[in-house]
Amino acid sequence: MKANIMYAAGDVRVEELPVPKVQLQTDAVLKVVASCICGSDLHPYRSMHSHDHPEGEAMGHEVIGRIEKMGSEVSGFEKGDLVIVPFAFGDNTCPYCQEGLMTSCVHGGFMTGCQAEYVRVPQAQGSMFKLPKEIDENSPLLPSLLTLSDVYGTGYHAAVMGSVNENTTVAVIGDGAVGLLAVMAAKKLGAEKIILMGRHKERTDLGIEFGATHVIPERGEEGVAKVRELTNGEGVHVVLECVGLKPAYEMSIGAVRAGGVISRVGVPQYEEAAVGFESLFGRNITLTGGPAPTRAYMEELLPDILDGTLEPGRVFDVTVDFDGVPEGYRLMNNREALKVLVKP
Amino acid sequence: MKANIMYAAGDVRVEELPVPKVQLQTDAVLKVVASCICGSDLHPYRSMHSHDHPEGEAMGHEVIGRIEKMGSEVSGFEKGDLVIVPFAFGDNTCPYCQEGLMTSCVHGGFMTGCQAEYVRVPQAQGSMFKLPKEIDENSPLLPSLLTLSDVYGTGYHAAVMGSVNENTTVAVIGDGAVGLLAVMAAKKLGAEKIILMGRHKERTDLGIEFGATHVIPERGEEGVAKVRELTNGEGVHVVLECVGLKPAYEMSIGAVRAGGVISRVGVPQYEEAAVGFESLFGRNITLTGGPAPTRAYMEELLPDILDGTLEPGRVFDVTVDFDGVPEGYRLMNNREALKVLVKP
Repeated sequence: MKANIMYAAGDVRVEELPVPKVQLQTDAVLKVVASCICGSDLHPYRSMHSHDHPEGEAMGHEVIGRIEKMGSEVSGFEKGDLVIVPFAFGDNTCPYCQEGLMTSCVHGGFMTGCQAEYVRVPQAQGSMFKLPKEIDENSPLLPSLLTLSDVYGTGYHAAVMGSVNENTTVAVIGDGAVGLLAVMAAKKLGAEKIILMGRHKERTDLGIEFGATHVIPERGEEGVAKVRELTNGEGVHVVLECVGLKPAYEMSIGAVRAGGVISRVGVPQYEEAAVGFESLFGRNITLTGGPAPTRAYMEELLPDILDGTLEPGRVFDVTVDFDGVPEGYRLMNNREALKVLVKP
Repeated sequence: MKANIMYAAGDVRVEELPVPKVQLQTDAVLKVVASCICGSDLHPYRSMHSHDHPEGEAMGHEVIGRIEKMGSEVSGFEKGDLVIVPFAFGDNTCPYCQEGLMTSCVHGGFMTGCQAEYVRVPQAQGSMFKLPKEIDENSPLLPSLLTLSDVYGTGYHAAVMGSVNENTTVAVIGDGAVGLLAVMAAKKLGAEKIILMGRHKERTDLGIEFGATHVIPERGEEGVAKVRELTNGEGVHVVLECVGLKPAYEMSIGAVRAGGVISRVGVPQYEEAAVGFESLFGRNITLTGGPAPTRAYMEELLPDILDGTLEPGRVFDVTVDFDGVPEGYRLMNNREALKVLVKP
């Protein structure tokens, strides 16, 4: 089968590999129907060193597929079922999973190798989410459904952890797919003032369609000043930080209101940052967020997609096949594509 | 009048000063009935440089007093009323105060000069909390009532911000007055497993009387291991960090469960700390807390004290008069006293 392997920064190759097998009886193997390239895949695409990964990394953690094989301990599914898999798999029965935190599942881990014709899903019974029978390979809803694997679920997690509701003002930092879908999530949860901070007009225009009421292209202190202008000088109740770089964290501190929340879903590319009296403590700021347990949100987010109310799949602006994945990386890295869909 | 002024580390002097006057029409002046020395007063007592404060600092931010004078804009009180003042004063009408966050009041600030015979209270109408008529200078409840000014309200704030309830396990870091009263607060909010981390036996014994179910004297990795032993290896749902030093923050990260909360009320003596994937983000840890808006909790916490159910005033183990304040600092700094009450 064709699979995409990353060997170093900028070096993604399509290779011929054996179709994966059921290794543990809790596994399933899917024939991939839709996958995609994630903004977080761009971190290794920019920084990976070949000597750290001599055998390369099988890329891709977002997938919709048809069940091809299942281990003996996977029940409740049939061969041929079309399923979504969350980027963080888990058993869905451990104490953390029961609390909706599959990213901390005691049998959990992160999906890999989805940018390929077939993929192995560990902890398949707990992880896979079966789609309704009427959805098939030709459904126009597939791109939106695929966002439940990661980016829409991640944007939604940011908003949920930030306690967004009809009484909160919101600033979303970042106009990537997660940022735009954090806007959609904030609107779904009732926020009436949603400030999108991003400077790529075609993206922020989509953000406006998703529910952003204001767009701020400025960054740093200028960006903070604009947020305060829009909020009686106070700042917003909730910042959804969808970037993961330290300047975005620092801007969050400037933009958030006393007593407010900074909810991060952009994977931090830093370990230490300001948390003392001057930054968080003195104003009773709450810092929250983390990797999104997207499996836990699928039931909740599915109906809006099925009935056409919401179209998170609009974040995909380029489609490639498995051979086109290296080019897809190039396009996303150069910001020529917002998010690249991968279909057979 | 007698007042206690700090000039440098270890240098607190009793001086004769004029009785303060009403400076703004929103002020009141109180005759001090009870004041005390705070753990946070020990920070300057250990580190203050005389050249930074050539005129000295009027010490003390916790007080119960009788109203002596009021400005024309203070209503709802009479001369002679006995009132508690929160360590952070405010107008109690601004948007932040209405949300219960007086520490961010637009007219707010921090009390000073309470370790004196008289004290000026800014924003008196919003800040002062009138005690019932049956309470007077001789009431045995005065020490407990005085803790509503800061330490009990601060411990309670930690527990509230940490969302402590009957389903959460709790670890309290620190066996000072705030830590012990955070134990009391956690129990009041229903927590059934309350682990007190402290190594001064006479203090942790009081913590057990306040509701601690376990005591861990170990610190650092050893302390974390003990917490995990008591929690199925998972850590606690909520850490109440009542110290403010970086090792306590780091121990909080080790002791908290995935998806849990670190709630800080110990004033951080650091600005930068770990917040990235390895510390907070990867396990969806929430970091919250800050200076406690103790005025907002007074109504709620008063009844338990009036009816004798709770005795937070047991944290006071030494009483001095105004002349005895310098000695009180010495005792607290040497850990010969847990908390020093100041009475005329």
